[in-house]
Amino acid sequence: MRGPRFTDIVAALPPTVPFVGPEQMERDRGAPFVARLGANESVFGPSPLASRAMQAADAEIWKYGDSTSFDLRHALAEDLGIGADNIVLGAGIDGLLESTVRLMVGPGDQVVTSDGAYPTFNFHVAGHGGTLHRVPYRDDHEDTEALLAKARAVGAKLIYLANPDNPMGSWLSAAQVEAMIAALPAGCVLVLDEAYVEFAPEDSVPAFDVTDPAVLRFRTFSKAHGMAGARVGYAIGQADVIAAYEKVRNHFGMNRSAQAGALAALQDRAWLARVQRDVATARDRIAAIARDNGLRPLASATNFVAVDCGADGGFARRVLTGLLAQGVFVRMPFVAPEDRCIRISAGTPEMLDAFAAALPEALAVARRG
Amino acid sequence: MRGPRFTDIVAALPPTVPFVGPEQMERDRGAPFVARLGANESVFGPSPLASRAMQAADAEIWKYGDSTSFDLRHALAEDLGIGADNIVLGAGIDGLLESTVRLMVGPGDQVVTSDGAYPTFNFHVAGHGGTLHRVPYRDDHEDTEALLAKARAVGAKLIYLANPDNPMGSWLSAAQVEAMIAALPAGCVLVLDEAYVEFAPEDSVPAFDVTDPAVLRFRTFSKAHGMAGARVGYAIGQADVIAAYEKVRNHFGMNRSAQAGALAALQDRAWLARVQRDVATARDRIAAIARDNGLRPLASATNFVAVDCGADGGFARRVLTGLLAQGVFVRMPFVAPEDRCIRISAGTPEMLDAFAAALPEALAVARRG
Repeated sequence: MRGPRFTDIVAALPPTVPFVGPEQMERDRGAPFVARLGANESVFGPSPLASRAMQAADAEIWKYGDSTSFDLRHALAEDLGIGADNIVLGAGIDGLLESTVRLMVGPGDQVVTSDGAYPTFNFHVAGHGGTLHRVPYRDDHEDTEALLAKARAVGAKLIYLANPDNPMGSWLSAAQVEAMIAALPAGCVLVLDEAYVEFAPEDSVPAFDVTDPAVLRFRTFSKAHGMAGARVGYAIGQADVIAAYEKVRNHFGMNRSAQAGALAALQDRAWLARVQRDVATARDRIAAIARDNGLRPLASATNFVAVDCGADGGFARRVLTGLLAQGVFVRMPFVAPEDRCIRISAGTPEMLDAFAAALPEALAVARRG
Repeated sequence: MRGPRFTDIVAALPPTVPFVGPEQMERDRGAPFVARLGANESVFGPSPLASRAMQAADAEIWKYGDSTSFDLRHALAEDLGIGADNIVLGAGIDGLLESTVRLMVGPGDQVVTSDGAYPTFNFHVAGHGGTLHRVPYRDDHEDTEALLAKARAVGAKLIYLANPDNPMGSWLSAAQVEAMIAALPAGCVLVLDEAYVEFAPEDSVPAFDVTDPAVLRFRTFSKAHGMAGARVGYAIGQADVIAAYEKVRNHFGMNRSAQAGALAALQDRAWLARVQRDVATARDRIAAIARDNGLRPLASATNFVAVDCGADGGFARRVLTGLLAQGVFVRMPFVAPEDRCIRISAGTPEMLDAFAAALPEALAVARRG
């Protein structure tokens, strides 16, 4: 037979993708969205310092980026009070999750996550032939005890936990996460996704212990720093574990201007504080809009709010469809009972005006069934 | 044991990286290079249209990039006279080589390349547990017959061929490549790296046959388009084979501004023609400098020139070290007999002045041994 012989893992994979992006949805509907509130991007944009740094770096875009991201790694290390050898950069948390799975997971290996948690992580586990075990949320929070129990039962190599959580916006206390870390089974690594950490209460963020080889933490410039399109994420862990990424990563894979932008973004604490305030204001507004329509907003430690539509997943999906039909892009959780909610990202006042205007009609249509 | 359980493949990998980048070399030497002529970047930079497009797109960097790279894929398809479903974008050819290897290679799988060809490809083959077989160059050209014979002998899933070749700058005719394609064994895919194709004679470029599942061609905006730091490469192949990348790739991994820049670069044929002229002029200058110093420049269809230093690898390495000591960054082939050469990228007149000024001293030191 002429042509490729795919690996057994690849041959068995379905042709599914983790997400259909908003641009594709716009092409499918034949019109742009009026409010882009579905991808938890930061509509408030990056720091002007970051923008200027990217523009300046564009003049040297003919050069490959620094393959070790030396300056950015050292700035992050200083910022976090850890070593530069405790940090590896990657093309967003997505890219680093792929590398992490690749380092540890193959056929016959077990991985645990929450049912309805991050699909891209699941995509990579399947993509490397791992077996994924899901435990339910408990009261809209990830359930650390259930995750641990399942990990013990199946001998998991990885547990995925997002704190704060996406898609629910809920959070665990630092003490809860630390208790989970203390109870990790032998040979099990906690993949702690902290994409939204800049929006979270301080007492939800465990202190760094970079002597612990069992914890990998993932952070990003895509959310609070407003640079989702730049693709800059980082993983934090024990130095020997971080060194292992050198064996598999795309060494010259980081965009040069993106690195410069991230470095500048780190310096602009005032901008970050402003985004945090704007996001808090937007969350309050989303909550008020929800309540005005008889819906219940869930508490959020992120840049989005999950809104309980008060019925089942079918109803929430009709609300979502009604919003999309009016050009308001939002998403929703994937599984019951969390799929009774829709998830709205913190928008500009104008975007939230559009959401407020569209919601009553979407609800009316949904109620007609 | 607390901590990760790496896969057997990863546990067995050495901690080597494919390349030490120029920024790291500059940090190691404690001074910037005066001439950056070692990474085959395009010192002539991107089209001004591409620069403007990137700057404009930076204003929307808070948005994730289009995960399907729809506009860029369609523009490339139109340009090449193929379908958009024959193209997949990735973070440079490097990222796409990784995905390609991952799709087809695991433990027990055989891969063939030339001894001294692209180390990053070899890195990914090792990284996925494949077994790499190397055949020698023949007269400084990749040897298609030897590659085919080895592939038949070992039952290879992949053959890597760069045309034009890096690091030698040599090229094969389209007829030679087409003959190789016609003779591919069953179940063997040709990984045809065309990173330098824009610098090559037309009669070295085979026509596209996107009905053939046995050929994957790789191109990039890093070389002629002057956007190495942006990380935009693409693979071209039969639609079903290209569709397989959806199963493994980092769907939201492409920088948004980079996509916009690449799209604009494609429109600027005048700039491309100018870069091609500037590169040709630079190649002539490098050749003249080589001859002025009693060295033999090899013919090149790329944006660099391999210069035969007239002795063995040890001698060429001393020349290279002597150039680096004077702030002139160049590289050299890795294996004998090609390692009798050093490889100099097409530079600006000022950079080549620096090379011309440094070479006599580097040669004198090398001759002292």
